[in-house]
Amino acid sequence: MLPIAVDAMGGDFAPAAIVDGAKRAHREFGIPIVLVGRPGEMGDTDGLSIIEASEVIAMDAEPGSSVRKMKDSSLVRAAEAVRDGAASAMVSAGNTGATMASALLRMGRIKGINRPSIATPIPVPGGTPTTLLDAGANAECRPEWLVEFAQMGGVYARDRFAIDRPKVGLLSIGEEAGKGSPFVKECFEHLSDPVWAAKAGCEWIGNVEGRDVMTDEVDVVVTDGFTGNVTLKTLEGAMKALINRLLVAIDTDDDTRAAGAALGPALDQMVSELHPDSVGGALLLGVKGVCVISHGSSSAAAMVNAIRVAHEMVEVEMVDHLTSAAAPG
Amino acid sequence: MLPIAVDAMGGDFAPAAIVDGAKRAHREFGIPIVLVGRPGEMGDTDGLSIIEASEVIAMDAEPGSSVRKMKDSSLVRAAEAVRDGAASAMVSAGNTGATMASALLRMGRIKGINRPSIATPIPVPGGTPTTLLDAGANAECRPEWLVEFAQMGGVYARDRFAIDRPKVGLLSIGEEAGKGSPFVKECFEHLSDPVWAAKAGCEWIGNVEGRDVMTDEVDVVVTDGFTGNVTLKTLEGAMKALINRLLVAIDTDDDTRAAGAALGPALDQMVSELHPDSVGGALLLGVKGVCVISHGSSSAAAMVNAIRVAHEMVEVEMVDHLTSAAAPG
Repeated sequence: MLPIAVDAMGGDFAPAAIVDGAKRAHREFGIPIVLVGRPGEMGDTDGLSIIEASEVIAMDAEPGSSVRKMKDSSLVRAAEAVRDGAASAMVSAGNTGATMASALLRMGRIKGINRPSIATPIPVPGGTPTTLLDAGANAECRPEWLVEFAQMGGVYARDRFAIDRPKVGLLSIGEEAGKGSPFVKECFEHLSDPVWAAKAGCEWIGNVEGRDVMTDEVDVVVTDGFTGNVTLKTLEGAMKALINRLLVAIDTDDDTRAAGAALGPALDQMVSELHPDSVGGALLLGVKGVCVISHGSSSAAAMVNAIRVAHEMVEVEMVDHLTSAAAPG
Repeated sequence: MLPIAVDAMGGDFAPAAIVDGAKRAHREFGIPIVLVGRPGEMGDTDGLSIIEASEVIAMDAEPGSSVRKMKDSSLVRAAEAVRDGAASAMVSAGNTGATMASALLRMGRIKGINRPSIATPIPVPGGTPTTLLDAGANAECRPEWLVEFAQMGGVYARDRFAIDRPKVGLLSIGEEAGKGSPFVKECFEHLSDPVWAAKAGCEWIGNVEGRDVMTDEVDVVVTDGFTGNVTLKTLEGAMKALINRLLVAIDTDDDTRAAGAALGPALDQMVSELHPDSVGGALLLGVKGVCVISHGSSSAAAMVNAIRVAHEMVEVEMVDHLTSAAAPG
């Protein structure tokens, strides 16, 4: 198998945490990896191979112009490695917009897909994660793009979470067909055409609401990239607020602190289940290659998970499945 | 003080839970109350006065036509009582759309307000609730309406939570001014005009993200009614999922169950802080009267809180403050 191209320079804790995660993914899971970036800044790479790239796109740089101008950046070189058959996938914790732009411009779009979309798995306590897309690639969407998101999300949910026939819902503000904004009503009409679901092996279940996202009522939630990103960040904020509040409750007095200590392992398990790092990053679906976008704040552990997801999606041939589902006719 | 008109017939547990809550609010807090609905179904009302109404708008009825046709419904009669000076405010746990329509059609709009908006307080652990609006009254909005929402939300946050100069933010997908959908960018421009904030005594802090909602970084979050409703329901779902997951963690073994028992009061306190019932329902802002919309699933305790909020908003003269802030010129 071709190596996974890991952008060593992207992320709040790059390159140290990234290189560390890459080494662990190679050592613990035998995943072939090529690091992309400035060799002099990577430290000891345990002999992992390297694609040299002299430039680094900053976390807050303007994505489009950066990718156009910085042709020797780690992000652009990583995407080129996939395009040129030197790598099987790319993984970055860097600038999300620049990651998308690099992948789109260098790998190109899958035929039949107008816009690539970011698919983010949302943890479901005691259940299978729900895939939310678009989680932020397209702040404004045309209704027909959501059909493509639905197909891609369905294929991804099957390949990633082994869901036989993923239930796909449209995020709205009421379950009845007539509920929502004019945009959502148009999306509903497009999604009600049975052809796409048959091609993608999905079940279209109609509108779902925000409260359904963290349940097994739905496997794939489609929405525009603005609503999707707001939903994702609202969930992240809620998790953080609740876990902090729980720590306050435990810190009430000596008795509750002792109880908290006894609950330690069970609570650690709960927090790690709900932590965004545990699901291994988001995927940019719709480009001709596997592209994993990890949190900017990714730790080495998060990178291990992101690299494992990239590896799995290559092995299961997700891009081929997306290509078949999206093929016109 | 004029009584609060309580729709005895609206809500999943009406009329029993509603009448029970009304009696408790009267008994425990001395709030004057008039129940609106079918006297024969109310049971013992402890001598609370009654406005008779023979019809009941069902929870799933189409709001507009119901309000137009059912002129002797409890919702329409409650709104008329406010309009006619027989009540100081209305409270309902019934059909949300019909509550809005009744209030709008019978009380009318405050001058300078194009569209009433639902303001929902979001619990902030260890802090002051954040007011989110529009939480669902207007699935599609014009950018200029968000300025009205911002003014109304600011006045409400000051009157309700005693925040001297509420920080008002626009919900977007990035903090920089240029981030968001074309609609949000237009809203940002309108909101950047300093006049509205001065009139409402607010501080405009620009874009905020979903992760800021449950923090004290922002006091009032404005958005369109679609995004607001998705955000609200996503938060409700996240709270429920997390609390259920916590119960699973506590139920791991005998040691964790014992620890859970020791944590009991601290966890109860946490859950009640985060429960939507504890904040006392949403307000429909922009109509000429106080209108509290409580959860359909309201318990008697939720009704007590909703009635208390209505009473407080009457006492503090919130509608006068809204009227001054929205007055043209």
